[in-house]
Amino acid sequence: MLDRVPDTVSVYEVSPRDGLQNEPTVVPLEQKVRLVEALLAAGITRIEAASFVSPKWVPQLADGEQLLARFGRREGITLSALCPNARGFERAASVGVAEVAVFLSASETHNRKNINRTVDEALAIYAEVTEMARAEGVRVRGYVSTVWGCPYEGEVEPARALSITRRLLEMGCYEISLGDTIGVGTPLQTRRIVDLFAREVGLDRIALHLHDTRGTALANILVGLEHGVRTFDASVGGLGGCPYAPGAAGNVATEDLVYMLHAMGVSTGIDLDALWEAGQVAEAVVGRPLPGKVHKAGTRWRRS
Amino acid sequence: MLDRVPDTVSVYEVSPRDGLQNEPTVVPLEQKVRLVEALLAAGITRIEAASFVSPKWVPQLADGEQLLARFGRREGITLSALCPNARGFERAASVGVAEVAVFLSASETHNRKNINRTVDEALAIYAEVTEMARAEGVRVRGYVSTVWGCPYEGEVEPARALSITRRLLEMGCYEISLGDTIGVGTPLQTRRIVDLFAREVGLDRIALHLHDTRGTALANILVGLEHGVRTFDASVGGLGGCPYAPGAAGNVATEDLVYMLHAMGVSTGIDLDALWEAGQVAEAVVGRPLPGKVHKAGTRWRRS
Repeated sequence: MLDRVPDTVSVYEVSPRDGLQNEPTVVPLEQKVRLVEALLAAGITRIEAASFVSPKWVPQLADGEQLLARFGRREGITLSALCPNARGFERAASVGVAEVAVFLSASETHNRKNINRTVDEALAIYAEVTEMARAEGVRVRGYVSTVWGCPYEGEVEPARALSITRRLLEMGCYEISLGDTIGVGTPLQTRRIVDLFAREVGLDRIALHLHDTRGTALANILVGLEHGVRTFDASVGGLGGCPYAPGAAGNVATEDLVYMLHAMGVSTGIDLDALWEAGQVAEAVVGRPLPGKVHKAGTRWRRS
Repeated sequence: MLDRVPDTVSVYEVSPRDGLQNEPTVVPLEQKVRLVEALLAAGITRIEAASFVSPKWVPQLADGEQLLARFGRREGITLSALCPNARGFERAASVGVAEVAVFLSASETHNRKNINRTVDEALAIYAEVTEMARAEGVRVRGYVSTVWGCPYEGEVEPARALSITRRLLEMGCYEISLGDTIGVGTPLQTRRIVDLFAREVGLDRIALHLHDTRGTALANILVGLEHGVRTFDASVGGLGGCPYAPGAAGNVATEDLVYMLHAMGVSTGIDLDALWEAGQVAEAVVGRPLPGKVHKAGTRWRRS
């Protein structure tokens, strides 16, 4: 085990979108800018910063255009935005984004409850979005949720996520991020899923998006890493847990991921100390304690 | 990876000792009894319940004799107690314990700060304790702390833990539990340590005692499991974190460990739902939220 650890891993930061979207209050634009700046200062180069889901549904992220416009396009930096449909893509394109993301669930019930569409309906809409994106030279990332389990349907056959992934790749998505949306995944299951995707579509266009709800995210990432995954989503401080259950975790904390990777000799291009500072900014921005472990414990452990 | 997952793992519960020892208040005897009973009801069979360190140093555990006497010896159940010296062993023996534990650090500085002795001084005392234990037919477990790192000395050469382990085994300890006392360990490091012990002393008498301070405990346990370790220490609810840093984790939470193991088809003899209930008891007993992830999220995730 661990004989195939890579030299480099790509970390995809989701806190400004997946994190702030779950906050009970609307974080002001200037605070969002502060968070994104802190993340960029830590060396993070890929950030999902906004969502163009209707502000009616996600008022927390209604200022997506302003946030993205503030940063513009920068060499070596990708700021992305979720787009649920053509209207969302138009909003994203209006501020010149380089990348958008589309999203759906591997389980029909979760998909209906989350975006009020069947899987096929969602895919038809994303075919349109990817077509528009191609015309504008915008890259599209795809998310497939509930791959490890659905709160309504229980375990989900990995073949369902695979068939959705194939269709998203055919449409032209450059990368598909497989989500353990409710954080139930365990290592053997992760191996099965990752091995299936390795065999069927290869792993160079697959990312893992794991929630740490039951403490297993880093163990699952370790399995992914060993079996060839090279991109992992994470959220600074673990931002994105349900704020109504203090300490309950959402996305795996970026600091925990980077701490583990760096200690294994895997480079990420991220400065862990500066990342820890970004976590402090995130905590200040949302005004509540965040659940990340390194966030709480600090990056330094030797009392000299 | 994960081709060598065992059928069964032994879970060694440390919450009544390692957990309660770190609480700022003294938990009343009846509440400790309640916690141990809840753990036994969940199917846990090995529990470190008491410490015979001087009550001057650990007033939280001054009632060790009463707690152990309350349970007595039971078929298939082991309640153990820490013994720092002959006097501690006499206290343990006075209530007829079947097992005691001795403990020291792989790093000299931590050992001096923790038990005010050099490693050699501690080993000389434990030679006496194990001799007394042999005469009484009492089993002795050994703990080696700071194996993954020392807050004073930084990284610790695994050879130091190995040489201490050898001496404890020669004295007659039946099992040595290697501790990541400050929770800094990462997977490659764990592989190196476990492989060294596998080569030099075999793993049938080695346990891992990992703190989850930086979120890496389950990833490290996964490595240990894959490389042949079959006994893991844990604390229900993650009891044992520093209570002054809310949410900062101490021992890996027993529920998180068991959740992961059961999902991988590894049996533990523990009923996860009943264990979750024991975690609720632990939380009530200490009167503060505990950091364990499954403790917070629950064992059931499907909304039917």
